[in-house]
Amino acid sequence: MAGTMKDKILLAHGSGGSLSREMIRECFLGPLNNPLLDALEDAAVFNANGRLAFTTDSYVVNPLFFPGGDIGKLSVCGTVNDLSMMGAAPMYLSLSLIIEEGFDIEQIHLIVASIRSTAAEAGVEIVTGDTKVVERRKADRLFINTAGIGRIAHGVKISSRHARIGDKIILSGTIGDHGIAVLGRREGFAFETRIESDCAPLNGLVAQMLKESEEIRSMRDPTRGGLAAVLNEIAEQSKVGMKIEEQSLPVCSAVRTACDFLGMDPLHLANEGKLVAVVSGGDAEKLVSKMRHHKYGRNAAVIGKIVADHPGSVVMKTCIGSHRIIPWPSGELLPRIC
Amino acid sequence: MAGTMKDKILLAHGSGGSLSREMIRECFLGPLNNPLLDALEDAAVFNANGRLAFTTDSYVVNPLFFPGGDIGKLSVCGTVNDLSMMGAAPMYLSLSLIIEEGFDIEQIHLIVASIRSTAAEAGVEIVTGDTKVVERRKADRLFINTAGIGRIAHGVKISSRHARIGDKIILSGTIGDHGIAVLGRREGFAFETRIESDCAPLNGLVAQMLKESEEIRSMRDPTRGGLAAVLNEIAEQSKVGMKIEEQSLPVCSAVRTACDFLGMDPLHLANEGKLVAVVSGGDAEKLVSKMRHHKYGRNAAVIGKIVADHPGSVVMKTCIGSHRIIPWPSGELLPRIC
Repeated sequence: MAGTMKDKILLAHGSGGSLSREMIRECFLGPLNNPLLDALEDAAVFNANGRLAFTTDSYVVNPLFFPGGDIGKLSVCGTVNDLSMMGAAPMYLSLSLIIEEGFDIEQIHLIVASIRSTAAEAGVEIVTGDTKVVERRKADRLFINTAGIGRIAHGVKISSRHARIGDKIILSGTIGDHGIAVLGRREGFAFETRIESDCAPLNGLVAQMLKESEEIRSMRDPTRGGLAAVLNEIAEQSKVGMKIEEQSLPVCSAVRTACDFLGMDPLHLANEGKLVAVVSGGDAEKLVSKMRHHKYGRNAAVIGKIVADHPGSVVMKTCIGSHRIIPWPSGELLPRIC
Repeated sequence: MAGTMKDKILLAHGSGGSLSREMIRECFLGPLNNPLLDALEDAAVFNANGRLAFTTDSYVVNPLFFPGGDIGKLSVCGTVNDLSMMGAAPMYLSLSLIIEEGFDIEQIHLIVASIRSTAAEAGVEIVTGDTKVVERRKADRLFINTAGIGRIAHGVKISSRHARIGDKIILSGTIGDHGIAVLGRREGFAFETRIESDCAPLNGLVAQMLKESEEIRSMRDPTRGGLAAVLNEIAEQSKVGMKIEEQSLPVCSAVRTACDFLGMDPLHLANEGKLVAVVSGGDAEKLVSKMRHHKYGRNAAVIGKIVADHPGSVVMKTCIGSHRIIPWPSGELLPRIC
């Protein structure tokens, strides 16, 4: 640790005085260095032209570090992915931290390093930010908010309202990895070492998909609420039925075993590097084969189709051939998974 | 309370399942209703053309309700004002809540009503949002993050780097009201009933100022760290000296008394509805007289000037005629004032 800063966060680090400035310089401006952020104005200023997407998410994941990622990586991926699901190319992110007094400054450095490398991979810049400090036991170590702005190319019109009868439903890879990885680390389960979060920025994969097909109708990333929630969202908003094939759902065997053991449903588990896309029936297979060449789409598969029956509902044909409705997830699920 | 919602926030309200959806509809979509938000996509989509400003702030104020405002009003004003200080007309805000399990849903309704009316006054829309719930004692009731996007008109070039020798420094009104109002309510001091926070959206005032003068160089709102921090920021970033006249500083008598009693310096207290502007010497007086016609600029005054001496430093001529350096605020100051 360089400089005169203490190694623990003090209330004075959030006061707006000289210690705040020092922390901002050492922890954020240095590692996240770019001209818009360095301007240190009340807001970042940039030029824009055309359609923009704007989104926000707060991250309260517990634990802060988990197999495959940490709250920093998560806070970049989550917002990059929300923009990507609208077909937007993510450009700029804001970064706001709420820190508990006494938090290790060394951990802030680790988390910011993770933010930095994930932002670099996604090709986005952190251009504006804020830091608040609250007293001990008034927050749980660290919460992060990121908001993001992306550019939507001419002609791209993706919406959860655009699914049509005859379209196919694509899932970009295995489900449940993030949920089980976080839960495993939090509870100290033995399986945790074998399962890593899928946490990843999906804008590169989406850019390839948009190049390959002009008939991508809807995209969603199945985070909180899992695959069950996003399928129901699209079915409800597009007023169409969905028919899913259980046997086509990619679930890795370690996640399947953990779910059996814990009595959890992989359909309800959070993912942080997966997407669901509804695309025209004609484009589905070529898209899937393209996606499989991308590192974040290796296990992409068509998992079902849009049907005229049961509008607003998702029905799954199970491995033994019966049909069951996939309802909206309800009840407790897993808290603080993202 | 309508519907099937319980009257306290449960962890399940943050799970991404059916209870989350219900809360989002009842608490947010209803009162904040607008087409971009109602789309319920992963991001809000809008058209833009030209220069945009982008900013974020998290709000952890304690108490949540204080004389003259609450965390909801504050979270809109703070972000609207940060955009305004760049000369941007605020357009769109995001809204993200981190809620402690057990928090009263009725209080969320009150806070969202306050967000709604403040956004209406400022002419901005809440277009995207997020809600997280954490366990009891893992957060202090409610934290809010807002990010915002504003449009900068052609020709407007405001920056903390643009102050020039010969410019005048304008303050839009009395200082310290917000800090003392929040502290008074938090600590239960007797004076609290007489002092209200100045919490207000300043974009209307700024729009009038921009109409009146093309020679506004720098603007800042003196929030955390108070007037002392923003004057030092501008002096440092513009590499100029500042000379302030203590007797021209507007401080209301109740705040002055409270500061004497508490041993606090009004220069270090947070404000949430005030601005500092550095403007050309020739435009200063006409700007001040214009500002005084606006409800948020009634006590506007020229408080000092930009000088060639002591670049990077702020010097105040006191009421008794001596000179003292106004340093960056340091040490504890007031935690959780915004």
